[in-house]
Amino acid sequence: MNLIAAPLAYAQAKRPRFVAELEDFIRFPSVSAQPQHADDGKKCAAWLANHLRAVGLEHVKIIPTPRHPIVYAEWWHAPAQPTVLIYGHYDVQPPDPLHEWHSPPFEPTVRGNDLYGRGASDDKGQLFTHVKALESYLHTTGVLPVNVKCLFEGEEEIGSPNLPSYLARNRDALASDVAVLSDMRILTPDRPAITYGLRGALSLEVEVHGPEQDLHSGNFGGAVHNPLKALCEIITSLHDTNGRVAIPGFYDRVRQWSEEERTYMEHTGPTNTQLLRDARVEKGWGECGYTLYERTTVRPALTVNGLIGGYQGPGVKAVIPARAVAKLNFRLVPDQDPREIDRLFRRHVACVTPPTVHATIRTHFLAHPALVSRNHPALRAAAVAYRKGFGATPVFLRSGGTIPVVNLLQERLGIPTVLMGFALPDDRMHAPNEKFHLPNFYHGIVTSIWFLAKVGAMTGNGADAGWAGHTTARA
Amino acid sequence: MNLIAAPLAYAQAKRPRFVAELEDFIRFPSVSAQPQHADDGKKCAAWLANHLRAVGLEHVKIIPTPRHPIVYAEWWHAPAQPTVLIYGHYDVQPPDPLHEWHSPPFEPTVRGNDLYGRGASDDKGQLFTHVKALESYLHTTGVLPVNVKCLFEGEEEIGSPNLPSYLARNRDALASDVAVLSDMRILTPDRPAITYGLRGALSLEVEVHGPEQDLHSGNFGGAVHNPLKALCEIITSLHDTNGRVAIPGFYDRVRQWSEEERTYMEHTGPTNTQLLRDARVEKGWGECGYTLYERTTVRPALTVNGLIGGYQGPGVKAVIPARAVAKLNFRLVPDQDPREIDRLFRRHVACVTPPTVHATIRTHFLAHPALVSRNHPALRAAAVAYRKGFGATPVFLRSGGTIPVVNLLQERLGIPTVLMGFALPDDRMHAPNEKFHLPNFYHGIVTSIWFLAKVGAMTGNGADAGWAGHTTARA
Repeated sequence: MNLIAAPLAYAQAKRPRFVAELEDFIRFPSVSAQPQHADDGKKCAAWLANHLRAVGLEHVKIIPTPRHPIVYAEWWHAPAQPTVLIYGHYDVQPPDPLHEWHSPPFEPTVRGNDLYGRGASDDKGQLFTHVKALESYLHTTGVLPVNVKCLFEGEEEIGSPNLPSYLARNRDALASDVAVLSDMRILTPDRPAITYGLRGALSLEVEVHGPEQDLHSGNFGGAVHNPLKALCEIITSLHDTNGRVAIPGFYDRVRQWSEEERTYMEHTGPTNTQLLRDARVEKGWGECGYTLYERTTVRPALTVNGLIGGYQGPGVKAVIPARAVAKLNFRLVPDQDPREIDRLFRRHVACVTPPTVHATIRTHFLAHPALVSRNHPALRAAAVAYRKGFGATPVFLRSGGTIPVVNLLQERLGIPTVLMGFALPDDRMHAPNEKFHLPNFYHGIVTSIWFLAKVGAMTGNGADAGWAGHTTARA
Repeated sequence: MNLIAAPLAYAQAKRPRFVAELEDFIRFPSVSAQPQHADDGKKCAAWLANHLRAVGLEHVKIIPTPRHPIVYAEWWHAPAQPTVLIYGHYDVQPPDPLHEWHSPPFEPTVRGNDLYGRGASDDKGQLFTHVKALESYLHTTGVLPVNVKCLFEGEEEIGSPNLPSYLARNRDALASDVAVLSDMRILTPDRPAITYGLRGALSLEVEVHGPEQDLHSGNFGGAVHNPLKALCEIITSLHDTNGRVAIPGFYDRVRQWSEEERTYMEHTGPTNTQLLRDARVEKGWGECGYTLYERTTVRPALTVNGLIGGYQGPGVKAVIPARAVAKLNFRLVPDQDPREIDRLFRRHVACVTPPTVHATIRTHFLAHPALVSRNHPALRAAAVAYRKGFGATPVFLRSGGTIPVVNLLQERLGIPTVLMGFALPDDRMHAPNEKFHLPNFYHGIVTSIWFLAKVGAMTGNGADAGWAGHTTARA
């Protein structure tokens, strides 16, 4: 226990500097989706790499990809101990709508106990808890209780397009016993949670074309099909009136869960009331026969994320637009296959598109759902660490979100992932006024310090510890 | 006839300068819908006023309104002759989508026989035919065959919000025997047309609100109603599957036309093939039982002009947007009342909006349909003028467009309007690459010269000429 006292004291003492450094990290507008921020992504990666060197990590590398680089670092001086792969992402969601922010998204601002800024919780703040835990060891005891490999990518928010090939090329170099990833939410500041399920995703764009160019709605209104109206009709056709996705075959592979699992979820997960409060809406919506928690975790969903068509400015412009585009996002559950859903979607749209317009579909990215056994030893280590860090036993939760790397690490490298979240439901990940609750930042660092200690204390290495058989299961 | 020879020769000789001046006129980005162009509108009005002074008109005034000023001028030295009110508008539609223009919208460019630029035909070019006709008289004979009042507004493209009160305040000052207005299309360069019917209009915005702010589609997708999807459903509910507007009561007052009128329209109007070629689409769409010409003139229509919701940038952003807005435009026919349609629309939207979202509606503007008797003496004068200007007898056409002033002049001032168009169906009014066919500009000037002469030759004044009883009929 002596070996952990110094890092814990260090983490406690250095809180103000840690927050200031996190603010520096957030200042980079590393928006991966927007080409105008490509250079900001590179600068952010360089800053992060320098920071990791200063913390005491070794072999720090910035690995270029066709878009945004990967930052890699390691510490490799505990040959008898397990190896932990720490994954995170330094890229962020676009900040718009900008006018809804109370302080600029890339000028981090502390109000009360919260640090506001794009990426504060998703994922810069959560990633940083582990970096500061490593620093707390290396700047006090000078050693880590485990070997560590850090893998911080810059493309998570655009579906990690270049990660699969990187993982495939570096299978041996990345070999680890367990991965840890903090990019999700707990229930409240004193009710921590470990995520054991993630939904998959499929992001698409549908573009409907009509006339060669915009037409005057007076001269042609009533005689020419309006692509924007046709697109609205296609979108309407995607759901039935009961909130279910109306694409034929969509539910064929959706896994039905046992009554035991549903009861477990009911006891551990948020109630409808809590979920509505988190969303700040009055009424729920969706598939009958399921709680809101189930609808957002074990049931698939389809949302329209954006629609662009016709005149976007103030006032009026009386046109029939030449085309319209909708951005759509599926969230998929075990045992749906995103490639199959992509095919079913394309077949459905071809079926419902009237002959008076043309529809084209672009697939942006797809990711498989992921599940981790609640009984994996690393999850038990995480539970102990949360008790130390947050003073409370964590519950096991499913998330409705998608983290492509979890399935990739399991499928490509055979590494199970501990999903150790520190964000809160009202942290507004992806929305204006994203924040990170600073007590969670501090408690997250303590939790990470304990997690590394507990994994290090478990056994010589993962294979000997009986970890096999509890790995992340491909959904 | 000697009195007209000199103006005609002048108009012929000055063509290159007239085109250069029209280019100057088009260079002002007088986009009335966009606040950032408010100053451009004022500059354009000042330029036009100076130009009218140079032409020889008198009492030229720039009359401020809460938004864009009215330009007024007159010539009042033929006390025994009729008075012609020349109406036009110097404001233009927004130029977007900008990237579809082959040359910049406000850098007028001649290619072949066409002058390209926003406002080239709608309405700067057509307005200018009359200005140049007046100049051709005043710079040669020094007199006009009629009294003239020019009324050029800057808000036509936003529904003429300040024109009604101006007309009401200046009823006596604007008293005239007939109005002439050139803001519409003929069939081909050698098939001129006089418009005798216009549709009314009702422009609205529907905004659907859901969550207080954008939500992560992973965390909440499936449990929270998506305002963008709800808006698509509302839009879908506005039509049945046969292309008819599905708002209860919408067709109750739509006038049924006699077989004679429908046969006349079939003989004089564009065929389906011509209309599709003009629109550059392959297939027609809309209400069964009517030709495309009928669908765009004597049948009402509803078009979605724009839809804005959620993420508009490149790539993906996985949000449930907090709100979505659609811009809608009705075209109305005799005997529909735009105020009643506004009420029916609001009632329908209230009815179909699900309780999980809120919808608010803003009415941007409304205008009544208008009809002019084909037998009015001023239309006969116009027919003669077209034969002189274009070498062909004009047909009488209905337009699907809306010109609020036509109904206003009739209702508020009792002045019938001659709708004397010079634009072509493929001039792309309201669309990228708007153009004006230069031969039509030249022939339009000649037509206007002849029209003024013929009206002046008809009689002492309108009342004596038996014009009463043939005035513009409120639809």
